[in-house]
Amino acid sequence: MSAASLQDRFIAIRNNKVFETFVIVVIVTSALVIGAKTYDMDPTLARVFEIMDWSITIFFLVEIIIRMLAERSLVSFFKKGWNIFDFLIVTASLIPVDESEMALLGRLLRIFRVLRLISIIPELRVLLNAFLSAIPRMGYVSLMMFIIFYIYAAMGSIFFSHINPVLWGDIAISLLTLFRVATFEDWTDVMYETMDVYPLSWMFYISFIFMVAFIFLNMMIGIVLETLQREHEEYNRELGEGEAGEVHWIREHTEAMEARLERIEALLQERVK
Amino acid sequence: MSAASLQDRFIAIRNNKVFETFVIVVIVTSALVIGAKTYDMDPTLARVFEIMDWSITIFFLVEIIIRMLAERSLVSFFKKGWNIFDFLIVTASLIPVDESEMALLGRLLRIFRVLRLISIIPELRVLLNAFLSAIPRMGYVSLMMFIIFYIYAAMGSIFFSHINPVLWGDIAISLLTLFRVATFEDWTDVMYETMDVYPLSWMFYISFIFMVAFIFLNMMIGIVLETLQREHEEYNRELGEGEAGEVHWIREHTEAMEARLERIEALLQERVK
Amino acid sequence: MSAASLQDRFIAIRNNKVFETFVIVVIVTSALVIGAKTYDMDPTLARVFEIMDWSITIFFLVEIIIRMLAERSLVSFFKKGWNIFDFLIVTASLIPVDESEMALLGRLLRIFRVLRLISIIPELRVLLNAFLSAIPRMGYVSLMMFIIFYIYAAMGSIFFSHINPVLWGDIAISLLTLFRVATFEDWTDVMYETMDVYPLSWMFYISFIFMVAFIFLNMMIGIVLETLQREHEEYNRELGEGEAGEVHWIREHTEAMEARLERIEALLQERVK
Amino acid sequence: MSAASLQDRFIAIRNNKVFETFVIVVIVTSALVIGAKTYDMDPTLARVFEIMDWSITIFFLVEIIIRMLAERSLVSFFKKGWNIFDFLIVTASLIPVDESEMALLGRLLRIFRVLRLISIIPELRVLLNAFLSAIPRMGYVSLMMFIIFYIYAAMGSIFFSHINPVLWGDIAISLLTLFRVATFEDWTDVMYETMDVYPLSWMFYISFIFMVAFIFLNMMIGIVLETLQREHEEYNRELGEGEAGEVHWIREHTEAMEARLERIEALLQERVK
Repeated sequence: MSAASLQDRFIAIRNNKVFETFVIVVIVTSALVIGAKTYDMDPTLARVFEIMDWSITIFFLVEIIIRMLAERSLVSFFKKGWNIFDFLIVTASLIPVDESEMALLGRLLRIFRVLRLISIIPELRVLLNAFLSAIPRMGYVSLMMFIIFYIYAAMGSIFFSHINPVLWGDIAISLLTLFRVATFEDWTDVMYETMDVYPLSWMFYISFIFMVAFIFLNMMIGIVLETLQREHEEYNRELGEGEAGEVHWIREHTEAMEARLERIEALLQERVK
Repeated sequence: MSAASLQDRFIAIRNNKVFETFVIVVIVTSALVIGAKTYDMDPTLARVFEIMDWSITIFFLVEIIIRMLAERSLVSFFKKGWNIFDFLIVTASLIPVDESEMALLGRLLRIFRVLRLISIIPELRVLLNAFLSAIPRMGYVSLMMFIIFYIYAAMGSIFFSHINPVLWGDIAISLLTLFRVATFEDWTDVMYETMDVYPLSWMFYISFIFMVAFIFLNMMIGIVLETLQREHEEYNRELGEGEAGEVHWIREHTEAMEARLERIEALLQERVK
Repeated sequence: MSAASLQDRFIAIRNNKVFETFVIVVIVTSALVIGAKTYDMDPTLARVFEIMDWSITIFFLVEIIIRMLAERSLVSFFKKGWNIFDFLIVTASLIPVDESEMALLGRLLRIFRVLRLISIIPELRVLLNAFLSAIPRMGYVSLMMFIIFYIYAAMGSIFFSHINPVLWGDIAISLLTLFRVATFEDWTDVMYETMDVYPLSWMFYISFIFMVAFIFLNMMIGIVLETLQREHEEYNRELGEGEAGEVHWIREHTEAMEARLERIEALLQERVK
Repeated sequence: MSAASLQDRFIAIRNNKVFETFVIVVIVTSALVIGAKTYDMDPTLARVFEIMDWSITIFFLVEIIIRMLAERSLVSFFKKGWNIFDFLIVTASLIPVDESEMALLGRLLRIFRVLRLISIIPELRVLLNAFLSAIPRMGYVSLMMFIIFYIYAAMGSIFFSHINPVLWGDIAISLLTLFRVATFEDWTDVMYETMDVYPLSWMFYISFIFMVAFIFLNMMIGIVLETLQREHEEYNRELGEGEAGEVHWIREHTEAMEARLERIEALLQERVK
């Protein structure tokens, strides 16, 4: 059998719908095995899951090798971001982690195999890309938000650190505490504590909550409007080819008709004379 | 009296506006009886409610039989989803549940009779259908959300189960704990507990909250935009029949007029010569 | 001085911009007096506020009499909803409430004088009308929401009343507890308590939260879309008078022009022969 | 060197891209120094940060002097709001604050130097302006919201102040407690306390939550719709110049063509006779 026909066979396997479904089944099984291993169980069952775990690891290895061989070259394989993603997840779970210390890391790496569901289901891939493309448009608003958080955290750790160092000890802890206040999580407990020392410190919290809520609201509305505007532009473009295009055509031809009518009238009037 | 005329009479009863209103009144009464029975009361009153309960059950049975007989055949009756729904609710509450153990189930089944309000009021039926039709468009985003939850739950139960097995004992409990974190319900208590062991575990919570909030936000915006787009399309279609259709008509007729004018000019010029 | 000229003078007072501003100032003062009286103060100051309170009451009485006399008849005065509103608030605060028991009611009635701000500032009146007009479109969704709440409350008080009668004693208390769960207020405390007895009771809470959140989301989107649609319709109507109207005009006149051209061509061809 | 050429040099420095980037770096450094100083550190390091702090202060002074000299006159410098903002922040941090009491104020003033990030990055400046321009359109709804809060706070402090003066002592504290209830922060604890005395006081809380949520929802929708409407108007205006403008042009010219055709037909018919 020639190398070329072997590659054709690999391509056939890779593109096979049944094979793809089977891969999804294995990923879901892998997720279930990970979940099952969080329960206490007798050694026999644990052994079964251990074997399943290794079988899955080997299956993933075989699958990725097939997909590599189905590609013309390794370079073209690694050109696709999702392939690198899959490759890293599969190889990472190959690292032997027998020592008790590393066992935790090994289990952690296997969890990320669930992420392969995203790389294999096209709809989820589209969704993830949509999410990633939404990040930059949040950029400056997030920076604004961070500046607000930072200023309040600095103020908080200067004024309140002697009241409760657990909440306001340094700027990092203060940022965490402010995030807590922003989620309304027992924020009054935090406030009442500092109000005992500084009775006016409620202004600190209320102003912070208003600013954060206000910026967040604007951020949300901004995103909605941007997406709407994009749709509007598409709609306009579409309209331009349809109705607006026709209107433009009519205008130009009306102009031509008028010129022609003027000539006709001139001709007729000439003959009357 | 012939069977046919009997059926006509049943149809007349079923379609009677007064009868329909009376059924709604009985359903509301049924709901009030269920509510009243959750209060402690003296045996005489309890007996009254017991009798009311059985009267309602019998009334519902009679009502559904009338609606069955009003239909041409049993098959056509069961073809409508709402009829099956009503039939199940009515027959379920007929099951005799005298033993103390089953009594709870009997009371439970009677609660669902309140749901008949939805099947009998057309506006609520439309609403429910709208809700059900909204579920698929949330499909892939929900799957994405579940993958995020599952990965974090697996990580949580691996790392934190020895800290607090009540919150992170296995993957099911961890999922519940993460849902709690997602609703901001005392999430800092959960976090501070694990931060005592792993000081950097705040990254686990903050990243989780950001991801969940971000996906949820995108889901909401996605739904709003999809609904808007659907409206847009309808609006376009409508426009096509109205304005855009007229514009197209004008374009075609302008074309015809131009051809005609060309011919007229040719005729006139010919005669000048 | 004749009665008519006296009435003209009252109308002049009522429509006077300075008078209106003064009324607003008195209402705000009234609000501040109400606020000030919630603080402990020495008897002299309390006496001052008492006098201010009565002065305000008398001023409001004089003002409403002026507005009554400025109207052609009492009937036309009471035809305006806002006038009834003002009249009730003013007369209610006139009721002498010297006894200690009634004193609380008297203070309560005076608080509602702040609401006169809404009746006197046109922008707030418009806002309130907008709010009130938004209520019916929430009707059926609210009914749906209430049915969900009611069913869960009935289930809750049947299953959980023996666990914690304070939270699930009867259907009214259960409704309150469920509202608490819907606001995510320490809902896990409620859940963990019942999970000790029924380990699967988390399904009760999670399904409830999902349903409520889902219906609420749909309600919000529904309202936004309805308002958008209304704007769209107005926009369409406006367009109809503007662009779409013009397009229709052009179509009709193009038709007429074509007929005329046909006649012209016929005339010309006839003469050629 | 002449004064004019010296000013040109200052303008060159101010507009230099490298200089601007350096200023941003210094501001970020300043923020980091502020953050670092919230940690405990040995005296040597503290001394280093003290020196950095002063260097930054002096750098900012030099920078603002350069920008002042680059301007034609001091008046034109202070005409720009952002320059006043920068000037205040820089001069405020110059105030010598050696006494222990004032040290806190000095640190506080230095925190606000982080705000210079907003004045120096154009995108953030645009964002802040957008936020500020959104404030007035919230005006009347905020007033409405405040009236609701004020009435409930007055009622709360009249009825509940004897139950828990810490939460309902006077109208200011009551407003804070109601804000807490509006954020759902342990609001049931507040409610259960008053329900022990007034069993029906849940109506107070539930009605308050509904009103606040309802007004807030309307506020959000109002803002979204206003922004949409503004976009719509722009879109209309644009359309007017594009499609709608062309349609109007066609209408007018169709009218002219019809008149001309009428004349042509008249001419032709005349000659037939």
